[in-house]
Amino acid sequence: MKKQTAAIIGGGVIGGGWAARFLLMGWDVRVFDPDPEAERKITEVLDNARRSLPGLTDVALPVEGRLSFHDTMSAAVADVAWVQESVPERLELKRKVYQTLQEHCPHDAVIGSSTSGFKPSQLQGCATRPEQIVVTHPFNPVYLLPLVELVPSDATAPDIVASAKDILTGIGMYPLHVRAEIDAHIADRFLEAVWREALWLIKDGIATTEEIDNAIRYGFGLRWAQMGLFETYRIAGGEAGMRHFIEQFGPCLEWPWTKLMDVPDLTDDLIDAVADQSDAQSGEYTIRELERARDDNLVTILRGLKAQDWGAGKLLNAQDRRVEGQVALPDDLSQPIVTVKRAVPLDWTDYNGHMNEAKYLQAFGDATDRMMLLVGCDAEYIATGGSYFTAETHIRHLDEVHAGAVIRVETQVLAGAGKKMHLFHRMWEGDREVATGEHMLIHVSLETRRASEPAPHLAAVLARVATAHEALSTPVGAGKAVGVRG
Amino acid sequence: MKKQTAAIIGGGVIGGGWAARFLLMGWDVRVFDPDPEAERKITEVLDNARRSLPGLTDVALPVEGRLSFHDTMSAAVADVAWVQESVPERLELKRKVYQTLQEHCPHDAVIGSSTSGFKPSQLQGCATRPEQIVVTHPFNPVYLLPLVELVPSDATAPDIVASAKDILTGIGMYPLHVRAEIDAHIADRFLEAVWREALWLIKDGIATTEEIDNAIRYGFGLRWAQMGLFETYRIAGGEAGMRHFIEQFGPCLEWPWTKLMDVPDLTDDLIDAVADQSDAQSGEYTIRELERARDDNLVTILRGLKAQDWGAGKLLNAQDRRVEGQVALPDDLSQPIVTVKRAVPLDWTDYNGHMNEAKYLQAFGDATDRMMLLVGCDAEYIATGGSYFTAETHIRHLDEVHAGAVIRVETQVLAGAGKKMHLFHRMWEGDREVATGEHMLIHVSLETRRASEPAPHLAAVLARVATAHEALSTPVGAGKAVGVRG
Repeated sequence: MKKQTAAIIGGGVIGGGWAARFLLMGWDVRVFDPDPEAERKITEVLDNARRSLPGLTDVALPVEGRLSFHDTMSAAVADVAWVQESVPERLELKRKVYQTLQEHCPHDAVIGSSTSGFKPSQLQGCATRPEQIVVTHPFNPVYLLPLVELVPSDATAPDIVASAKDILTGIGMYPLHVRAEIDAHIADRFLEAVWREALWLIKDGIATTEEIDNAIRYGFGLRWAQMGLFETYRIAGGEAGMRHFIEQFGPCLEWPWTKLMDVPDLTDDLIDAVADQSDAQSGEYTIRELERARDDNLVTILRGLKAQDWGAGKLLNAQDRRVEGQVALPDDLSQPIVTVKRAVPLDWTDYNGHMNEAKYLQAFGDATDRMMLLVGCDAEYIATGGSYFTAETHIRHLDEVHAGAVIRVETQVLAGAGKKMHLFHRMWEGDREVATGEHMLIHVSLETRRASEPAPHLAAVLARVATAHEALSTPVGAGKAVGVRG
Repeated sequence: MKKQTAAIIGGGVIGGGWAARFLLMGWDVRVFDPDPEAERKITEVLDNARRSLPGLTDVALPVEGRLSFHDTMSAAVADVAWVQESVPERLELKRKVYQTLQEHCPHDAVIGSSTSGFKPSQLQGCATRPEQIVVTHPFNPVYLLPLVELVPSDATAPDIVASAKDILTGIGMYPLHVRAEIDAHIADRFLEAVWREALWLIKDGIATTEEIDNAIRYGFGLRWAQMGLFETYRIAGGEAGMRHFIEQFGPCLEWPWTKLMDVPDLTDDLIDAVADQSDAQSGEYTIRELERARDDNLVTILRGLKAQDWGAGKLLNAQDRRVEGQVALPDDLSQPIVTVKRAVPLDWTDYNGHMNEAKYLQAFGDATDRMMLLVGCDAEYIATGGSYFTAETHIRHLDEVHAGAVIRVETQVLAGAGKKMHLFHRMWEGDREVATGEHMLIHVSLETRRASEPAPHLAAVLARVATAHEALSTPVGAGKAVGVRG
């Protein structure tokens, strides 16, 4: 992929989140923001992103792009493929920004607005080239949440919409194409509905901010993180499906809907109540601590969904495959094979502050899976009823690794004949060896669950690698028992 | 804890979910439901619960209670501590049920209603003992989601409310005490608000069911699963907190709130649109498949939050500690020590359908942690700057284990002197040995990250165990290298 550049107009939490996502996906980023604090603010967001985003992917990320700050909009937007506008929500200000930046940016660049309050046709009002402008409304933290609402107007060029979809998908986001302009787009309508109900509950003294948060996160919030609303309730309809659910529950759902529809006034008393309750609930944490807890939790949830290949996790797996491209045995088999290259995710660390021992085996297991794939034991082969099971493992922990570190596993085939595949993995952080893993795998029939001969084509490829690796020296630690120095 | 019995009046998905939660937490359960399909329906829910709930806890669950079905309400409710009513949402029917069951149930039993539509004072209308009745509104799947809205009326006895809180907490739920009766309690008000907006979006052709679900689960749904609404937005306010957020964003949030407040008519066209879109979105899965995907995802998310000790995961950790009670070295040290006893969670299995190799080390790592705790290397000790790091591991995989299996790890101290702790774990499912783990641990200073002597009190306890275990025979596989038969 050719090196690309994005301009970020307006820093802050949202602009900074966009900057972080583009940078970590290998784009160069140019920032324009007259706020003297912009660089500090964006650097803070970037710190958060660097500790959380890289470990979401199970493959090596591109080299981080270059970040630069510019005093003029013209310098920021020249020759860019993307302009992201995240200035304050004032229509006149946004229109003025578009006038200036369209004087200097390429005609085929996407100009996306982070606005939640304005429709694209409003933004395009006084623009030189309205066809270039589209709403791309993200969700905080932009570097972790994949959703972005992509809202064109009738005046937006189809090429710009297509290009925006490609680019957003390329940086790991999910562009939700909103086909009609409406106030607040889609997701914020739900958020507003919930805010409205929540403020009434607080105003009427029914529930506190903490009780409301608990009502969400101990109940339907857990359902929504993976299935949303309709798929969840489809289940409630049973085999008869959604029609049955709506027909059966519709009438009783309709009844309370007619109550409490008006909006409570944001009086000082109500603001005090919300602020005081929030302090009581979360005041023990600084905002920075809350941000990090949020990101730790999001990484954990997203990686969990990834293991299930469901929801946002399915998006991440698709992104990994796009980033990695075709996987094949290297032509040169004279050296150990790189089978893992990845950042250590936040959720791989433990109370000692370093990568947990079980995650070393997770990484070695991934390396083994990759080696299996490379010799032809792929999903298709496994579907025919053959696979390798690990019979024995010996791990030597040589040094600590921390979250965010890029680790690399190099794999040497010690033996690969008959039912056996004997592997030796060495894990590195840069030129520091952090662990070794010696593994004996046995080819099995998935039907009998017993040892069996691999298919000839698989055996042949494995033998070719094993033969090539015979020339390598026996690695330190191989063939040793626990407690015996190598 | 003494053996207790719950009566489930009305089976189905909700009643079945309650039955499953009580049973798996060791309660006996008596079901009354005139529906001839009740037993089949409850058994299906119970199957789902048995495969997902036990692995949520990291300790051994109580022995499952006894399930029985009864032809009369009187037989079901005699001598029970809890009656859960989940009959259809018709007030006259519910009132009739209370009249009958109050003739037969103990006066100090809690009578909880799963109603989402009625207030407790409505339910109490014609009751003999209104003080006994309270709303206990759960969320589907009841066996996994901790939230239950506990809504008393002014007529409900404080003892009943206190007893209900104790019992719900005891079966791993979070009773949200709703202090005032309102229609739809708390959580359903949010769900209704979102349903209302969603139906408008579909009716107006703005978004499909799938797009709406994606707008939720790729965006704010991920935030809500862990922090809910207010804690999430507290972050948006920065260090100035929630007051700053509300003051700054309140006015612009207020503006779209005044739109789309009425309820769309549930016309046939709208029902068709919802049903057809839902088929297009999820029709490839049966409801049973969706249920299992949902439960797999929920277990994964809940266990992830548990590792972060946050949100619903924090509740689960607290529950584990309650279930397990005090942890101490056994008096009899003549045998290996049981260091792990747990069900294999759903998220520990892989594409081969069995427990993933890395999870063997996870379980052995947990066994090691427990051994450390038993000899005095607890959180307090670690806070003083000492801990054990694993230097080497040798695992022999002897047999497969599947999700839901109860595994037990027995630990023998091979050596425990100076800086070294040499452990040998054997993992069992019943009387079938499934793996062994040999581990060399080194005591370290957390400041220098180098080997150091343990504190004298810790060394003394470890030496006592090591000396006692010297009398045990050397286990098969100890001291062996990979590929060497023991």
